[in-house]
Amino acid sequence: MFEYKAPMRDYKFVMQELLTCDKHYQTLGYDEASTDMVDAILSEAAKFTEQVIAPINQIGDQQGCHWENGKVTTPDGFKDAYKQYVDGGWPTLSQDEDFGGQGLPHSINMVVSEMLSAANHSFSMYPGLSHGCMSTLEFHGTEQQKSMFMPKLVEGTWTGTMCLTESHAGTDLGLLRTKAELNEDGSYKINGSKIFISAGEHDLSDNIVHLVIARVTDSPAGTKGISLFVVPKFNVNDDGSIADENGVSCGSIEHKMGINGNATCVINFDDAKGYLIGEKNKGLKCMFTFMNGARLGVANEGVAASEAAFQGSLAYAQDRLQMRSLTGVKNPKGDADPIIVHPDVRRMLLTQKSIAEGGRALVSQLAQLVDITHAGNSDEDKLAANNRLALLTPIAKAFLTETAVDSASYGIQVLGGHGFIKEWGMEQLLRDTKICCLYEGTTGIQALDLIGRKVLGTKGVLLNDFIDEIKVFCKRNENNSVSLLAHTLVDYVELWSEVTHEIGIKASANPDELGAASVDYLMLSGYITLGYMWAQMAKTAQDTISKNPDEKDFYLAKVQTAEFYFARVMPKAHGHLACLASGAKTMMSMESEHFSF
Amino acid sequence: MFEYKAPMRDYKFVMQELLTCDKHYQTLGYDEASTDMVDAILSEAAKFTEQVIAPINQIGDQQGCHWENGKVTTPDGFKDAYKQYVDGGWPTLSQDEDFGGQGLPHSINMVVSEMLSAANHSFSMYPGLSHGCMSTLEFHGTEQQKSMFMPKLVEGTWTGTMCLTESHAGTDLGLLRTKAELNEDGSYKINGSKIFISAGEHDLSDNIVHLVIARVTDSPAGTKGISLFVVPKFNVNDDGSIADENGVSCGSIEHKMGINGNATCVINFDDAKGYLIGEKNKGLKCMFTFMNGARLGVANEGVAASEAAFQGSLAYAQDRLQMRSLTGVKNPKGDADPIIVHPDVRRMLLTQKSIAEGGRALVSQLAQLVDITHAGNSDEDKLAANNRLALLTPIAKAFLTETAVDSASYGIQVLGGHGFIKEWGMEQLLRDTKICCLYEGTTGIQALDLIGRKVLGTKGVLLNDFIDEIKVFCKRNENNSVSLLAHTLVDYVELWSEVTHEIGIKASANPDELGAASVDYLMLSGYITLGYMWAQMAKTAQDTISKNPDEKDFYLAKVQTAEFYFARVMPKAHGHLACLASGAKTMMSMESEHFSF
Repeated sequence: MFEYKAPMRDYKFVMQELLTCDKHYQTLGYDEASTDMVDAILSEAAKFTEQVIAPINQIGDQQGCHWENGKVTTPDGFKDAYKQYVDGGWPTLSQDEDFGGQGLPHSINMVVSEMLSAANHSFSMYPGLSHGCMSTLEFHGTEQQKSMFMPKLVEGTWTGTMCLTESHAGTDLGLLRTKAELNEDGSYKINGSKIFISAGEHDLSDNIVHLVIARVTDSPAGTKGISLFVVPKFNVNDDGSIADENGVSCGSIEHKMGINGNATCVINFDDAKGYLIGEKNKGLKCMFTFMNGARLGVANEGVAASEAAFQGSLAYAQDRLQMRSLTGVKNPKGDADPIIVHPDVRRMLLTQKSIAEGGRALVSQLAQLVDITHAGNSDEDKLAANNRLALLTPIAKAFLTETAVDSASYGIQVLGGHGFIKEWGMEQLLRDTKICCLYEGTTGIQALDLIGRKVLGTKGVLLNDFIDEIKVFCKRNENNSVSLLAHTLVDYVELWSEVTHEIGIKASANPDELGAASVDYLMLSGYITLGYMWAQMAKTAQDTISKNPDEKDFYLAKVQTAEFYFARVMPKAHGHLACLASGAKTMMSMESEHFSF
Repeated sequence: MFEYKAPMRDYKFVMQELLTCDKHYQTLGYDEASTDMVDAILSEAAKFTEQVIAPINQIGDQQGCHWENGKVTTPDGFKDAYKQYVDGGWPTLSQDEDFGGQGLPHSINMVVSEMLSAANHSFSMYPGLSHGCMSTLEFHGTEQQKSMFMPKLVEGTWTGTMCLTESHAGTDLGLLRTKAELNEDGSYKINGSKIFISAGEHDLSDNIVHLVIARVTDSPAGTKGISLFVVPKFNVNDDGSIADENGVSCGSIEHKMGINGNATCVINFDDAKGYLIGEKNKGLKCMFTFMNGARLGVANEGVAASEAAFQGSLAYAQDRLQMRSLTGVKNPKGDADPIIVHPDVRRMLLTQKSIAEGGRALVSQLAQLVDITHAGNSDEDKLAANNRLALLTPIAKAFLTETAVDSASYGIQVLGGHGFIKEWGMEQLLRDTKICCLYEGTTGIQALDLIGRKVLGTKGVLLNDFIDEIKVFCKRNENNSVSLLAHTLVDYVELWSEVTHEIGIKASANPDELGAASVDYLMLSGYITLGYMWAQMAKTAQDTISKNPDEKDFYLAKVQTAEFYFARVMPKAHGHLACLASGAKTMMSMESEHFSF
């Protein structure tokens, strides 16, 4: 098992040097988020995740969660670690001061979340789900609901969930059958059964606050009749104390490929008491508050997984002696050279590194946009931030999780046979990470959201804004230290424009062209988006190098990683481009019954 | 859990229609391998694998193997199933009649092996390893060694292994430390410890015959001092009966990502008695007899995994109702359409299908070449077959296993959240399949073997022969029903030639260019090779369609799958081409110590 180390130097580079977070926080009025404060928080978070959370990652996988008579027990050490998490005040970090939060920007919490997830994906999901629950209550809840639930959620002594999926209704939420019936006191009686509820039941907190979508008895069928409810495991008195049990029970937990330390539950609602959040029949809209935040959170899990895979692979590659370099002995004192001398091992390591660091830059930039949606100085700023988030969230979610699975898979390959053995931790990483391509909307769903809703649905406005920004960047850098990258990037961006236009034309004649292009289009968009992040990072690094800094090696490695990304990772976009160029025809011609004989 | 069904119609198409196996077997003098006989064998194999072997696949994963005091117990049902396997005469199928075999062609056994592996990867490895052990003994053993070990191995009451890896010597076998000391009676005393020995110890057979590489005490260091030995678990009397225990013991078994039903053992040799196979210090050469066969066997496991992933995904996609088709309701009686109507689901299914069926055609053709190496009518025929096998084995091994992992991953994606749940069997498939990219030489090692030894090492002769054959095919079909495919294919082949030439030039200046290009080059080669198989299959199918056959739908689906492969799978080669075109520079520039700060 490799030892997780929070990449502190890279956080500093991304937040302070690339994204100038000092200025960003000042502009938004986050006066307490000074450089010193951010440093102190991240150092503490590093210590906590390295020393408390990472050590229970492997045991969490081995033991899993246990269900007995409706009660779920988490693996050894989880309960104590969660208590330390609460005692350390971590849940309060970016929450509203009105509810006991520290009122710090969300972008700081995003970094802490990356550390938590890299150290222990399963553990990180317990606070992760609470976070989404709190956002939704904050945006859409009544004052009474907020005062009822928020203080304990912020404190962390209660946790939250999101209950959407039913056995026959996953992507297609319009099919849901969970019913809500109005009680005389204005509350609702909820009946139904939900599946795949992460952190749905466990022994870490005193109460669990479920956000549940259901159909009110007189509501229409389909997605237009979906409402959102808050349904606590234990009812809550007016003073916020816990009352009697609500009609909420955990029917069983799933046996899964990974994230075994997190309980994935069947949650049954039997005449459970719930409270309507937002307007009746507008539940999907409210739910998307949760969902968009959650999708960015999953993108962050992708970054965390690529980082962890890189760390595990790098440690092995620097240590393992096997064969000699083709260009001559590099380690004359040993029986063989460390495998990091071999080009293909470097290809895998640098791919992991460029995805982890490029992804971190992207997610951090998106987290700053989230800060603006909360604390922006004008409605225009907020709208612009929301629009950019709308465009880039599905890209970040799907691209950074698909490439995270690649990173984890490379992790196994770098270790060879040892990668397949549990004790090294690399195979767990692949098993834990694969869920990221599924939950909060599969890769296919993100891809449809991107091309259908975000790109063509806005007549290209959101995309063109982004492309214009990239072109301005490339123009400004066409004659300096990153000019090669800028010239390459602008070519890719032109291709991106063209292919978008072509898909639009094809799709207007045949809607299946949308679906046929979707995933390849998303991956292409991802490679180019990360290319833009790397070009910006290379520029920041080159500017610093020109000042002959102490840490020249660090900045040089940034430039080299950018060059590697442009040479050996971004060109994968050409494969996706060539595939999607062929359109839908060969995908749709075969009769469904002729797939097998 | 999906129910495995042997793809009988496709076997008939590939073996009889595409590869005209009747003629092939007649030419080689396999008179007993008539169409009727082959049909009868494959039907029995289908029944056996579907009804006996597949049902213990999931329980094998759940229970795994257990080690206690050196003894290994296989999962429930494995012992009985293996007994049925032996009683059914399956191990004898393609073995020499001199040792009790049925003397049938190896290519028939290859089909049976695919079924076994698709039904239960872990189980199939027990007979799989025996097969490699027998080939090696047959080629390199003395008459006495053959008579000592072959009859029981052929019968299946003894099984075999291959003991290469040591903890510090995986790819780099030259580092091995296991020692062999000559005894007075001409046998050797073996001392050392081997790891990752599949089927190294178990409760299925009466004896286990280990093939072990070791260094004779007076042999030189490195790969030039490696010799091969046969070392039985129990010593064997002259009459072939079991004598006393040899100094062979199982120290422990590994806990792994997958193939849990197969024991992966540490095998300790303590003054074990062994017998030299082939010449002293020529062990690696002998071992490659085992290895080349084993690599083709692993390619076949890749085909099996893609087939199983396709079957599991297809069953779900035809059954699961979710959302409506973008081009209008397809299932008006249901609440939603089956997800097979959605383009992206079809993209995943057709990718799995085209890889499984294309891979099957490739492996079957290679298996016919193996037949020729055994029973060819002239040395020229045998040499030609060996040369083509030398070129295509690393391609088949690495490409068909990398794409098998993709197929298994798509299997999870098609099922959405259910794909992550153990009971559906799709996540097991991914876990079981990932080992194929590692054992018998990782993907990286296959890629170096291809570009270094097989392509540039022969000055391009092997590749040019193959490319010439493809060009002749394309020329012959430039004006008929498959002309579009032929024209596309010839363009890809030209690219293949060009890029090979370019790598050769770069590598002569800098050997790291070889490693830098290797994996992308291998994948490119794989996509083109499978394209050739699909073009041939499309031609066979079109020829039959022109005769207006009863099963027109089957042949039409073949043509449609070929068109899909050319439109949406083969173009992925362009991504690999674009990556490798950038060469080694950006991979090698970073100092090893600068990968992390």
